[in-house]
Amino acid sequence: MTEIRPTLPQDAADITRLAGAERLFNAEEVACVAELLQDYLDKPDHNGYFFLTAESDGRVVGFACYGPTPLTHGTFDLYWILVDRAAGRRGIGRALMARVETEVRERKGRLLVLDTSGREDYAGTRGFYESLGYERTSVVPEFYGPGDDLVVYTRRFAEG
Amino acid sequence: MTEIRPTLPQDAADITRLAGAERLFNAEEVACVAELLQDYLDKPDHNGYFFLTAESDGRVVGFACYGPTPLTHGTFDLYWILVDRAAGRRGIGRALMARVETEVRERKGRLLVLDTSGREDYAGTRGFYESLGYERTSVVPEFYGPGDDLVVYTRRFAEG
Repeated sequence: MTEIRPTLPQDAADITRLAGAERLFNAEEVACVAELLQDYLDKPDHNGYFFLTAESDGRVVGFACYGPTPLTHGTFDLYWILVDRAAGRRGIGRALMARVETEVRERKGRLLVLDTSGREDYAGTRGFYESLGYERTSVVPEFYGPGDDLVVYTRRFAEG
Repeated sequence: MTEIRPTLPQDAADITRLAGAERLFNAEEVACVAELLQDYLDKPDHNGYFFLTAESDGRVVGFACYGPTPLTHGTFDLYWILVDRAAGRRGIGRALMARVETEVRERKGRLLVLDTSGREDYAGTRGFYESLGYERTSVVPEFYGPGDDLVVYTRRFAEG
């Protein structure tokens, strides 16, 4: 059984390890995950970022990080969603995403934005978002680097 | 004569006042300008943000804030550019933008990204970017709020 719950201080080492083991994350991204996670754990009421942990049989098998987009009204960004590849193909990513969507709606979100890469090795990630009904809204060519486009997916939530 | 130079501590009050007086900036945005400016003045070597001041006859008449986009290679964001409306129509915005572009190129930037609003009252801003040759690259409908689209402009710089 997989449970999705708010991330606790005791998850920090596992989350950093998962991020470090993920082949699509570079060192800068792993450091960024660790920094935002520490910020969240230090100030859970700060409300800039929210972390969720997926736990399966007592093990941390994934996490998601989302938060309100600064200077917008009702727009949220999903910063990261990651599932341990060894634990994958069991709906853990879908369960994490469903929980993010529920929380965004509870926080009066209108729009959830997912930034990802257009690189070939992100095809699985884009397919995952598309299978969940996310709309490919825009592309900024070579945003992340040469040959590495930004692809923006969005999902709109009904108001009220 | 207008001079463009790195922002100094003694400009802070004028920049905050200009931001506060600009009708397109809301209170959250003014607070955000003040926070990033303080961060820049406290840690000018931090390199997350760079502020430039436009000074004309001893008065601060505009500013720009730009910086490298986190988790990208060679992409920079222009966070704000603002010219005192009372001092406008004298090429101050163009001079600020030219300096930003020069500095981005010096910092090995490949791509400069400008996020702006699709709202009618931002038509002048969009026209300014378009007149400088910026390409309207993508739109995320209702990103900033209901009826308030994100419009992304980009300019690409030749490598090397």
